[in-house]
Amino acid sequence: MNYQLLGPLRVIESSAFIAAPLAGLTLAQFGADVIRVDLIGGGIDYGRLPLAPGGRSLYWTGLNKAKRSIAIDIRKPQGRELLRALVAAPGPDGGVLLTNIATPWLSHATLASMRADVITCTISGNPDGSTAVDYTVNAATGFPAITGNGSMQAPVNHVLPAWDVACAYQAAFALLAAVLQRRHTGAGAELRLALSDVAFATLSNLGILAQAELSGQDRPNLGNHIHGAFGRDFATRDGQRVMVAGVSAGQWSALCAACGLGSEKEAMDEAARFAARDAIADVVAAWCAARDVSEVERVFESHKVCWGRYRTVSDLLANDPRVSLANPVFEQLTTPGVGSHRAAGTAVRLADRERSATVPAPWLGQHTEEVLTGVLDLDASAIGRLMDTGVVAGPQRDPYWR
Amino acid sequence: MNYQLLGPLRVIESSAFIAAPLAGLTLAQFGADVIRVDLIGGGIDYGRLPLAPGGRSLYWTGLNKAKRSIAIDIRKPQGRELLRALVAAPGPDGGVLLTNIATPWLSHATLASMRADVITCTISGNPDGSTAVDYTVNAATGFPAITGNGSMQAPVNHVLPAWDVACAYQAAFALLAAVLQRRHTGAGAELRLALSDVAFATLSNLGILAQAELSGQDRPNLGNHIHGAFGRDFATRDGQRVMVAGVSAGQWSALCAACGLGSEKEAMDEAARFAARDAIADVVAAWCAARDVSEVERVFESHKVCWGRYRTVSDLLANDPRVSLANPVFEQLTTPGVGSHRAAGTAVRLADRERSATVPAPWLGQHTEEVLTGVLDLDASAIGRLMDTGVVAGPQRDPYWR
Repeated sequence: MNYQLLGPLRVIESSAFIAAPLAGLTLAQFGADVIRVDLIGGGIDYGRLPLAPGGRSLYWTGLNKAKRSIAIDIRKPQGRELLRALVAAPGPDGGVLLTNIATPWLSHATLASMRADVITCTISGNPDGSTAVDYTVNAATGFPAITGNGSMQAPVNHVLPAWDVACAYQAAFALLAAVLQRRHTGAGAELRLALSDVAFATLSNLGILAQAELSGQDRPNLGNHIHGAFGRDFATRDGQRVMVAGVSAGQWSALCAACGLGSEKEAMDEAARFAARDAIADVVAAWCAARDVSEVERVFESHKVCWGRYRTVSDLLANDPRVSLANPVFEQLTTPGVGSHRAAGTAVRLADRERSATVPAPWLGQHTEEVLTGVLDLDASAIGRLMDTGVVAGPQRDPYWR
Repeated sequence: MNYQLLGPLRVIESSAFIAAPLAGLTLAQFGADVIRVDLIGGGIDYGRLPLAPGGRSLYWTGLNKAKRSIAIDIRKPQGRELLRALVAAPGPDGGVLLTNIATPWLSHATLASMRADVITCTISGNPDGSTAVDYTVNAATGFPAITGNGSMQAPVNHVLPAWDVACAYQAAFALLAAVLQRRHTGAGAELRLALSDVAFATLSNLGILAQAELSGQDRPNLGNHIHGAFGRDFATRDGQRVMVAGVSAGQWSALCAACGLGSEKEAMDEAARFAARDAIADVVAAWCAARDVSEVERVFESHKVCWGRYRTVSDLLANDPRVSLANPVFEQLTTPGVGSHRAAGTAVRLADRERSATVPAPWLGQHTEEVLTGVLDLDASAIGRLMDTGVVAGPQRDPYWR
């Protein structure tokens, strides 16, 4: 938790992979008590790459910061019953499920029969429930054919699972909207969000869908040029690479002044710059090629040009102050089973509020006992029986526990 | 508005480009009264590409659906005063500003002196307020060097402004969290969100930052392979292209069965599949190359393989039922000055709630009079004076008005 805006809202997250866990992380960073449910020993994503040198997943621990963990064998009827009980537990701040596991035994109707005002948010690949992942959805967006040197015969996939990320934040938003309404009206909500809808709605929001429909033509491949404005990458004399953008009027004036583009080019509006992008790029390319990156940086900064250096992640960590510990979004986190590493809390900043330290990802089942006690009011002997029969487990059953 | 969950929350959006407008759209689709403020005749993004055949921006109209529009000359002191008054107008559901224009005359402190419980959400490029756009931030994430055939010498930019999109939904989420808290405590909030923080925090959440730090190595370029699992694109006999993924156990079994990968490969876990990706891809490539896409589709669908066709946007519109009018997320919208086209509402679905039709983007200043009357209680003569002195304008001043 970085900021306490949502507490004591409690969210039961039965999930895997990116979209649902990242939605849960978003809620947890704002103070919700997010209880992540995993199988004993870890579910499908518990060992997902990349791994820490000791073997624990950096992917799982990255997405499950700031949450509590309960390990339940949801393949057993008793485990399923327990998960439903956690979601349906009474109190105005409970009754919220976040999941990407659409299954009849955890359906909204089943949960609503236990708690009428339950809020469920279920993320799927396609809206009909058929399987899809970020990369299979992205194939249909048209982007791979216009990325890099891509074409329909040799498409270029994105590396960032952008639709998972966009879906996650939308899910967190929608869930919060439902909570806000429940506080007013007392009514629950069944929310559904499909990766494919997220992707194709984005095409509509950016005008790309309408462009294809109304012009009858698809956007051409522009390589590294920014569509509709001026922007491209350039090499410096010492072999570094910079991205330069002139989108707003201020950015454009700054670039013109820095690279001496002249008053005729400076007078161009955004569409004119886009049309003249190759001629403009020739001048900027020659200007950059004649200077080392340190000189490019000095001139660009003094003119307030909109630009950025291409970096590897190692270079970013070592040299970019925006991910240094001087940025309060980043901290040095000690994750159990992983060690000490730099990590981000929420990207949101609240002025005049104290930002709490990020709590690292838990061991699997680290909070099994306290959740069963605190949420379900089970006593020690009931918890002991659940442990003995393998329905739940504590952190000792985490494969990396030490 | 597609679902009424947030009304009568009122949000004043003084913005341009993608992140802030998309955040506003997200709020508007859930029922907030989002009032977009633009310069008379349009601001910096009003004519942004792509354009409809008649000249109106599909970009602007895509991002400003479901909002009201007021045209104010905020270069004039009176216009600035009016904008501040709109934000600070009384009532429990007002007092919210969404902007990407950080400027002293619209600062949180200034607004808080007028209305103590104001909530402001300000989006910037870099956290220090310096200029940055999606593409200059993306350069530093390491992704361009590992996309397609990219390298540090020849980076490949993404085409989707993924950080703008991620920032937008996070802003909508954070703003809603602040509204929820204000309803409990009465306190306002000053929210700030930088594109660079959004991007670099994502690297942390996905384990990529820690991977580079703890291993001392950067993720290699994998071309179109999915990192950490099996997935790649393949050509079919008739020259079509498909993306195939075997991430979950079910997806992997389905692919093994469909393409006859054999029991030895089927027994591989995710990490083993990733390690053996080239050998696996050879078999799948041969299998796809021996079949037309219709046959690939038939077999994949019958085995429930996780796959997708690469499409252009035109192909998507014409042939993918997920963007057809059979999908309630999509509708045929008539946008003034643009015409009739397919468009998306919110990607979120609420079961058992009626989904209202999307309201198309307004003319610039279409709601100037009703906003000044309804929010600021100005009478006709006061509005007339503001019109006469060029402080505000109605839709007649929209350059595409007809």
